[in-house]
Order: sequence, then C-alpha cells, then structure tokens
Amino acid sequence: MTINVGIIGVGMIGQDHIRRLTQVLPGAAVVAVTDVNAEQAERVAAGVPGAKVFATGQELIAHDGVDAIVVCSWGPTHEEYVLAAIAAGKPVFCEKPLATTQEACLRILEAEVAAGRRLVQVGYMRRFDAGYRALKAVVDAGDIGAPLVVHCAHRNASVPGHYTREMAISDTAVHEIDVVRWLLGEEIVGTTVLTPRRSRHGGELQDPLIILLETASGVIVDVEVSVNIRYGYDIRGEIVGENGTASLGGPAPVAVRRDGRVGVPVPADWRERFLQAYDVELQEWVHAISLGGQPLGPSAWDGYAAAAVSDAGVEALRTGNRVLISLVDQPKLYAEAAG
Amino acid sequence: MTINVGIIGVGMIGQDHIRRLTQVLPGAAVVAVTDVNAEQAERVAAGVPGAKVFATGQELIAHDGVDAIVVCSWGPTHEEYVLAAIAAGKPVFCEKPLATTQEACLRILEAEVAAGRRLVQVGYMRRFDAGYRALKAVVDAGDIGAPLVVHCAHRNASVPGHYTREMAISDTAVHEIDVVRWLLGEEIVGTTVLTPRRSRHGGELQDPLIILLETASGVIVDVEVSVNIRYGYDIRGEIVGENGTASLGGPAPVAVRRDGRVGVPVPADWRERFLQAYDVELQEWVHAISLGGQPLGPSAWDGYAAAAVSDAGVEALRTGNRVLISLVDQPKLYAEAAG
Amino acid sequence: MTINVGIIGVGMIGQDHIRRLTQVLPGAAVVAVTDVNAEQAERVAAGVPGAKVFATGQELIAHDGVDAIVVCSWGPTHEEYVLAAIAAGKPVFCEKPLATTQEACLRILEAEVAAGRRLVQVGYMRRFDAGYRALKAVVDAGDIGAPLVVHCAHRNASVPGHYTREMAISDTAVHEIDVVRWLLGEEIVGTTVLTPRRSRHGGELQDPLIILLETASGVIVDVEVSVNIRYGYDIRGEIVGENGTASLGGPAPVAVRRDGRVGVPVPADWRERFLQAYDVELQEWVHAISLGGQPLGPSAWDGYAAAAVSDAGVEALRTGNRVLISLVDQPKLYAEAAG
Amino acid sequence: MTINVGIIGVGMIGQDHIRRLTQVLPGAAVVAVTDVNAEQAERVAAGVPGAKVFATGQELIAHDGVDAIVVCSWGPTHEEYVLAAIAAGKPVFCEKPLATTQEACLRILEAEVAAGRRLVQVGYMRRFDAGYRALKAVVDAGDIGAPLVVHCAHRNASVPGHYTREMAISDTAVHEIDVVRWLLGEEIVGTTVLTPRRSRHGGELQDPLIILLETASGVIVDVEVSVNIRYGYDIRGEIVGENGTASLGGPAPVAVRRDGRVGVPVPADWRERFLQAYDVELQEWVHAISLGGQPLGPSAWDGYAAAAVSDAGVEALRTGNRVLISLVDQPKLYAEAAG
Repeated sequence: MTINVGIIGVGMIGQDHIRRLTQVLPGAAVVAVTDVNAEQAERVAAGVPGAKVFATGQELIAHDGVDAIVVCSWGPTHEEYVLAAIAAGKPVFCEKPLATTQEACLRILEAEVAAGRRLVQVGYMRRFDAGYRALKAVVDAGDIGAPLVVHCAHRNASVPGHYTREMAISDTAVHEIDVVRWLLGEEIVGTTVLTPRRSRHGGELQDPLIILLETASGVIVDVEVSVNIRYGYDIRGEIVGENGTASLGGPAPVAVRRDGRVGVPVPADWRERFLQAYDVELQEWVHAISLGGQPLGPSAWDGYAAAAVSDAGVEALRTGNRVLISLVDQPKLYAEAAG
Repeated sequence: MTINVGIIGVGMIGQDHIRRLTQVLPGAAVVAVTDVNAEQAERVAAGVPGAKVFATGQELIAHDGVDAIVVCSWGPTHEEYVLAAIAAGKPVFCEKPLATTQEACLRILEAEVAAGRRLVQVGYMRRFDAGYRALKAVVDAGDIGAPLVVHCAHRNASVPGHYTREMAISDTAVHEIDVVRWLLGEEIVGTTVLTPRRSRHGGELQDPLIILLETASGVIVDVEVSVNIRYGYDIRGEIVGENGTASLGGPAPVAVRRDGRVGVPVPADWRERFLQAYDVELQEWVHAISLGGQPLGPSAWDGYAAAAVSDAGVEALRTGNRVLISLVDQPKLYAEAAG
Repeated sequence: MTINVGIIGVGMIGQDHIRRLTQVLPGAAVVAVTDVNAEQAERVAAGVPGAKVFATGQELIAHDGVDAIVVCSWGPTHEEYVLAAIAAGKPVFCEKPLATTQEACLRILEAEVAAGRRLVQVGYMRRFDAGYRALKAVVDAGDIGAPLVVHCAHRNASVPGHYTREMAISDTAVHEIDVVRWLLGEEIVGTTVLTPRRSRHGGELQDPLIILLETASGVIVDVEVSVNIRYGYDIRGEIVGENGTASLGGPAPVAVRRDGRVGVPVPADWRERFLQAYDVELQEWVHAISLGGQPLGPSAWDGYAAAAVSDAGVEALRTGNRVLISLVDQPKLYAEAAG
Repeated sequence: MTINVGIIGVGMIGQDHIRRLTQVLPGAAVVAVTDVNAEQAERVAAGVPGAKVFATGQELIAHDGVDAIVVCSWGPTHEEYVLAAIAAGKPVFCEKPLATTQEACLRILEAEVAAGRRLVQVGYMRRFDAGYRALKAVVDAGDIGAPLVVHCAHRNASVPGHYTREMAISDTAVHEIDVVRWLLGEEIVGTTVLTPRRSRHGGELQDPLIILLETASGVIVDVEVSVNIRYGYDIRGEIVGENGTASLGGPAPVAVRRDGRVGVPVPADWRERFLQAYDVELQEWVHAISLGGQPLGPSAWDGYAAAAVSDAGVEALRTGNRVLISLVDQPKLYAEAAG
C-alpha cells in the first residue's frame, strides 16, 4: 500500500524529504505540496509527477487524497498544522521543533490525547542513526552498568550570521536534549549553562557554550556546543556507567596515510553525517503508517519535553542560574513511548 | 515509473533481494518469481502482493509484464537465463558468478555485444560500499600517488562443511578480484597461491590461503583468505601508493570501554557488513533502468574477467605454479565500463 | 658528576624512586634514607649499597654527603622537610602535595624567594608524559587556535576503603589542576563541583564527580573523576580551540581481534600509565641539578597554586557553591616557570 | 657496580650509544673509544669525561680497564672485533649485522661455543620495543591460537642515493626477519621476493619489494618494504592466528582534529619510532653483564640465522626463484635463547 503524503513547506528540508519519499524510499508518494511562497511551491511541484499545489496547509491537510502530512514550514506555524492534522485524524511528521512554546506543545498533547492515539512524530533524527542505536543497545544491555555521566560535543564548522546564542540551545543542543532523554529513558529536570571564552570566529556570538543537564535519577550530562570550529561537523557522545563507558564511533570509511599523519575524514555537515538517519527515520515512519499503526519515533511528548528543557536552557543562559524543569504529568498515551 | 522485476531463484539471496525491492527501495515491484523448487516459489510469492509464479525462468523472462530480471539461481543456470534475458532485450541483474566457465561468460559477452547495448549487471556489491567508494575516491584524486601494492584480507568466522579450497578463490577471493580491478582500473594478468600452515578449525581444508595477483601495470596484490577465524567477518584493504596509503575504515558505530579494554565490534557476517552496499547496488540498478539507461555497475566484461582470474587462481592453487591470465580483446561496448 | 640523593620516606613511592635512581637512571646515587618507621628504613637501606640510615629527615638533610633530597613522606611532614632543604641550600624534589595547606605553601614560597633561587620541584609527573607533551606542543604551535574549553576524564578502576570524596579533588583531580595550568599557561580562578548519581561500587562515596574549572582568560575545563569504574585506569584530555581540537592519544601497543571485537588494552593503574613519565621526571631533575642549575619542573609556585585550587574545589564540593580563587602576587622568581 | 665500556666506531650510531650509556642509562661508563678515523675518535672522546682513545679496536678490546665492548664500526670489520672480544672473554654488543657473511657468522658461533658461554649480543632492537613485546605476549598467551600468517610493512620516508635493492633485504627487511623468528619462536626455511611496479621516487631502485618468508611450521610471512614513501616511517605487523589476530598498535601520543580530518602523527624515522627500544636494549644488556650473567638479547645464533635468511632473500631477489634456507645444527648453547 502506498501512502500519499502532503508536504507543508518546501524549503531545503522539505525538498530533501520529497527527494527521500520519491527517490530513496518505497511505500510513499508525494501528492500534495504547499508553501508560504506560492511560486516556490509551483516550482517544486513541477518536479514531482502527480503532486498538486495547495494554497494553504489547511487545505492540503483537509484534502481527501492526502493520507499523511510532513510539516517543514517555519517553526511558528507548526502548531497550527499539527493541530489541523490531528483534527483530521491524519498522521503528521513535524520537523523540529514541535512548536515554539511549551504552551503550544501542551495544546498539541491535549489534542492528541483527546484523539486517543498517536498521530504525531517529531523530526529528531538521531534516534535513527546507527551509532546512537548501537550506543543505546550497549546501555540497554547493561554492559556498562547504570549510567552516571554523559559527555557530548556538538560541533559545526560554521553558522550563518543570523545565528544567536539562544539558537545554540534551541536549535543545536536540542538534538542532544532529545537523544539523551531517549538514551537514558528518563527526563531532564535541571540545567545550567556555562559561557567559556569566546571564539573569534563567532564575532559577538557567545560561542562555545557548555550546557549541563541533570536527569531525574541524577545523571549529569555535559554538552559542549561549538558552532564555528572550522574543522568540520563532529558529533560525539560517551555514556559513563558504573562498569565502563560506551562512545559513539562515528563514520570513518577510509584512513589516509600521507604527509606525516594518519588521517580520517570528518563529515562536512549534518547532512553528510546523518544522511542515513534521515532515510531510516522516514522509512520507519512510512512503514508504521502503511501498516495502519502509530508512529514509533519521537512523540508529541518528546517534542514538549525538548521544548521545556530548551526553554529552561535559554533562561539559564540569560540569567546564569541553574533552572529547574517541571513537566506536566505524562498522559498515559505516551507511557511506553520512550523506546 | 515503476520497474516490474522478475526473480529467478528464491533461496536466501533471492528472498533478500525481494525484501529489498519491495520494502527498502522505491521504483520497483516484484511481479514474477520462479524457482527450481516450485513449492518454495509458491511460498515466497504468497508473501509478495501481485507476484505471479512461473514454472520456468524462460517463461518468466519472456513474460510481457516483466521489465527486468534478477537471477539468483544456482550458478550453473546463470548462463542460460542471462542469455535469454539478452535475447528478450531485457536488463538482467545476475548474482555472481556471471557464469561458471569462461567460455560461458564469453558467450554472454558475444550475445550482449550483438545486442549492441549493456543489459547485464553482475552482483559484485563491494563497488557500492561507502568504504570502498571512499578508497577509490582517494586513489582517483591522486592523493597517494600511483598505486604500487595492495594488501587485502577477507576473513569469515566460519564456513559450512561443503566449502572447498577452490571456493576460497572462486567464491570468496573473487570479491577482491573484482574490487581490485575496479579500484585500480586495470586488469589482473597473473596469479600465484600460497598455502600457509592450516588452521585446525578448517579440518582438512587448506585454510588460510594467500593469493597473489599481478596487474597489467605491475601492481602486486596480496589477499589473505581466512575462512574459519572465529572472531567475525573482517574485510580489510590498503592501497600503497608512491606518496602514502589509503585503507578501508570499516564500520565502527560504537566503542565500549570495559574489562580492561577499549573494544570496537566486528560485524558477524557479510550480510551485516555489506547491508547498505546491497541496497545501494540494487537502488542504482533500478534507477538506471527506470531512466531507460544502461546499468553502470559491474558488466559482463567484469564477470568474464573475474572468472578468468578465478580460474587461473584455482589452477595456481592446484599446481603451485604462477599462472598467467590472458583475456580476449575487450569489445568496445565495455571500454568505459571500468568506473 | 654523580648526585648523592637522600630519600625521606621509604614507603611504596619512596622505594620506587630509589629503584629509579639506582637502577633506571644515570647520574645519581642514593646515599641516605630515613623513615618514621626506623625498621622499614633499615630494611630498605639494606638493599641499597652505600646507603646510610638517618634517624630523622632533619639529620639527613643536614648531612654533608647529601647533595639533594627527595621527600616521599606523609603529606603533613612535607613543609618541614622542604623548608629545611631550602635552609640548607639543597635542591629538594617533593612528592605532591607541596604542603597540606596554602599557608604552608606560602611559607615555602617565601623561604625560596628569600633564598633567591629555585630549589624546589613538586612531583606532578604528567608534565613529563609523552602524550601531554605532544598535546602541549600542538597547543603552543597554534595548530588549533586559542583554547576555549578543555575536557578531562580521570578514571581509576577502584580506590581503597579510606578514600574520601575530598580526596577525589585533593589527591586525584589535583593532577588535572596542575596539568591544565601548564597546558594553558595560565591560572585557574574559579571552580564548581557537580555530584552526579553515585556508582554503587563506591558505597557511600560521592563518586563520580564533575569538577568545573575556570581560567583567567575564561577557558572552562570539565574534569570527570570516576574512581571505581572497574575497567582500568584511563586518563583522557581534549583541548578545544578555535580551529580544532587536540586529544591525548593514550598508549595502545597492541590491538587484538578476537571474540567479535577489535580490542585495545587499557592500563591497569597509574604506575603502568605513567611509568615513563616518572622516569623522565626524575631524569630531568637529576640532570638539571648535576649541571648546577635550577630544576625546571613544577615549582613551589605550582605547588601553591594547585593547593589553592584544590582547597577551593573541596569547598565547592562541600557547599555546592562556585568558589573563586585568588592567589597572592607571583614572586618574580617564578615568572618564567610556567613552561 | 659500574660496567666500563669501550666503543669501537664512533659514527652516528656509536655516538648515540655513548650518549645513551653516559646520559640516559645507569650502570655503565664509557672508558674507551676507537675509530678508523682517529680525529673523529679524539673529537668524540673529548666530550666523554674519562674516555681514552685507542689506536685500534684490538688494543681497546685487550685493555684491562675495558669490561665490555660495543661494536658500531663498518659491517666488514664486525667479525674481527667480535672474535677478539670472545678471545678476551669479554661481553660484546655488536650492531647488526653480526658479520657480513654466513661463514663469518659461523666462525663467531664456533668461537663462542668453544668459550662455553654467551658473550655476544646482536643489535636487533625491535625485541625491546613495547609494541612488539605486547604482540609477543598476546601470541605466547595463546590468545589468538596458533599463528598461521604474518603481515608486515616496513616503510621509510626516503633513503640515500647509495641505497641498493639488496639493502632493502639485508639492511631493512632484516629487522622483520629477526623479529618474526623471535615472535614465532621458530626458524625461517624459505623465501621468495616479488617486485611490484616501481615508485618514481626511487629512480632506478626496485622499490617497493614484497618479501615472502616461510617458517619451519609453515607460517607464511609477507613483508612489504617501501623505502621512499614520503609520508613517514611506518612499521606495521599483524599476526593472524586460528582464533583471531594481534597487530602492533604504534605510537600515537596525540590526535588532532583540524582541516576536515582527525589526524594522528606518524614518526619521521626509526630513531623517533624506536628511541625507547634502543634504551631498553642497552639497559638490559648492561644490567645482565653487571650481574655477571650472559646477555639475554639476540644471540650470535640469531645473527647467523638472520644472515642466512637475508642471503637467501638477496638470491631470491636476483634470481626470481624461491630459495630454501638450511641452517647448521644449532649448538646447545643457544637452545633456550629464542625468548
């Protein structure tokens, strides 16, 4: 059975998901697109046989020929489209963030709980990366004992000029926030942000940051975010347990001995590093939907929790204080979603 | 456009390709299957919506609803099916070997040349592996200078009881034979086989072997084949050039510090190691066909050359001599197929 | 010229230094020993041809035949012996800590400044480790740009029952405190200590700790101290600069492929990990003295600074607060000692 | 007890051993030097307090004040000095080769056997390298099962203009010949040399070579010798056993992330790579002699066996044939010298 997908927002990520759904993965067709920029929507649709352009996201969602929705529009519009998809009873894959405020996330939770089944998946793709999955398998097998500390580094070669210090948390470290919750299977309850000496490459930007997260059981996570580090895109993680540690391996297809050095290449950016994770993410989503089931990836609850921790991180950055996070009670619908 | 594929031979590999074409990759449908074991064919077809069972490979190939053929049957039957596909003017993906004798390979070459276009692709999947592609990219970029020596190791944890010493060349090292020709872009012209002290794990089997290959330009390749090495499936390769070397990295998703050691897992078998290479192999094949083009993967010429080198290797093993290989003149059709 | 050395304190470390000075290194002889346990002193002296036993450290220091002193006695006695050596105008190598209080360290500084030349070296051996030296060379060459963040981990397989949470700072992390000051060439001005979830292996002990250090220029250092991690002794360090990072390699003499894994051994303990660093440390000390010069290793100022930061760390641990460190003005004698 | 050492030949290696014996290691004094170039001998002696210059090696050996001899002169003179030392009953450390012909080696064996105790050690320093020792420990512990195949690579950045193809065996690969005999604890009985495509960096020189060695039990060893590979000095070794493999780790004190790559430095030359092995080699030699015992390092038998295999390799290179090696019966004196 082929799933007919409608895409809301056809910028870079939207176009990439269209490519994925039409050229890389089986089981789905892109039948509808829309964008705030109507010309852009037309241009993209022209390259997708069978895709119809809709004037608005709401019309696209409502259309009978659309089985499921992928939301890649501007963050502030996510809430509206996700709520509309829930109202229509249609599965919706929403790129991060789920919504730009915790309140909006809670409205989505409420709507989904009222609908009585999971319809929402949020685009945290790291959970689909082979490295993170191997890391989680080691932890879940008990091979290193109970986790006590987690070290993360999230490094970008550079960021565009409009990038702000808050984005280092809400756009960048939010991936670690999500993946650490998933790896450890528990919530983050507190955060503090440290501001080291600035890199000259960032100009006025406070870069790097060290974000400390505390979990419900007391695990402490340190996340170094360096977004102008020039040498490449480097994602690292090590979980320190009672008996040992497990670290992300990272992709190293080739080693070159040359010029006095054994060198292993570092990916240039997140697209290269997480290419396959994005593929697996959408493939599993399409597969779950085509079986008539609920999506198994990051849920609306995960989107809400990430928003709450991210908000706390931004407050911690602005105030210099340790900020505690208290989530609403978790609805039963999400009880087993952690895996 | 969806390619309707017929599968000849639905044993382990045939079923795996069906899974790949129906669940993993876009652009293809499996519409026909056949197997020497008719019951097996029925059983497999039952799990593939829309797949029809044919009594023979010839009928399957002839059927109008079949656009392209995948041959996964017993080696001795490959020639017959590949020739029939060429006669029908249909693209055919043939698992290795292309045929079991050089003469049979030559008959296929002749038929394809007569047809005037490439219809045949042989299933050497390593050319689609990210590691080998990165290796080739380093060599082709001139980063290590002209290649002079290549070191390979091909290790299996264990082999079944019917495995013979000749299979160490014709079934196992044949992958190195193909991939080295491709990495270096030249033919192999001579071979010698050395027989080290035997592993007790192989019983009477001559295991390991060291297979030496010489290329037209004088590069020497040594291939260690160890098929009972217990610790896992390990494929290694290093190209030694004038200015440096390039080595396969190998997949290492996670590193575990435990029990006095930093440990990185080794794949259990070829399925795990080359899972993605198989996906990419068929994806690119489907893609090329759906665009109406010729397949770009290993050609009938590559299948023939591998057979000739493999035969020479078997003779070298049996006689203890250095055996020279002389190929027929390469038809123009294959002139640019090396890449 | 042979340096005649007297050893104060012949417990495990004292005996190890005797072995080093008599069997491993050239240029020195051990001519005098003393210990609070007189029998122990006799027993050890019996194995060192030419070594005389002294009743007290003061007598040993005063003896004409003793050119230089190595202090390996109980920490609270260090001040007394170091001051006596300075008074006698003799070079003294003092195992860490220089003294158990900052006030005591300052009294030593004052005495040495009054003496007008450097006589004291403190036993921080990491500065003599090939890995740390390579790390410093990369930083000093500017290869990674200005340092911004440093990540350290200090892991022990286990600790004895009398080990306290304060010792995790004053005995364990004090090595990172010293080596980070040296690597960065600047002082530490503030510290905070975080207490993650406890390892069951430590019983009531607060283990692990995360110790945050801030330097004068704003570099932030995080030090994970895990002292019951079972898998071995593991010292790691990465300096994150503006253009890249440099990490300690760590000794890996052999890699074993076995049982589904490529494994590299981890040292069992600090003796194995830093064996050569201890040798180089004493060798350079003996060499400097035999040339009539001043010791170039960690100075009394370094010992004082480490004590000040360590004290602040202990306070930070006890109070949960960020604690600032303010050192006295650095005497000119130590101005160029950072390297 | 201090061993008074006389040095015959004070070129680069002789001077390095003088530095080692006087500045790095305890237990020895250099009391005598001689060189075919008398001015050179005077110049070097001027920097060694207490060292006397002798007109000839024979006089130096005969002098009462000399306890032990280190021979670093030109290869063709080794036999004469080693025989003289044996005649004088003095321990002699002879840089490789023991002698330049097998016949000369046999004369040395005969003399030493007549003397009734081991006096000769040959300068194969790899047996004292931490990496090779760890490799041997893994093999001896049975961790990888019985060895079946050994892969070696010996790469130099460049060689001087007078370097010949024969030297690639007799000067370069001879280190692998010795260390493989030691690692496996058995003799080499046959050899073949392969000549790959030449590197342009070597001009007319046949570079690289692949040297195949066969041991008594049937282990096959392949040694790649590349002496103009530009990127550095790289020594690699992997022993393939029945259950797994063990590889040399190689020194990697630091890893630098920069410019799109994780890079680990490669040593520039053998001095850097084997610095510590040379120290340990002489230290253990001095130690054994000072205890009045026999040297435990590579024996005259090892020197003879290396010469025999090296000669066979040169013949194999010149003729293109497989050349068998047959050693004389091993005198009892050397029976337990393999370790």
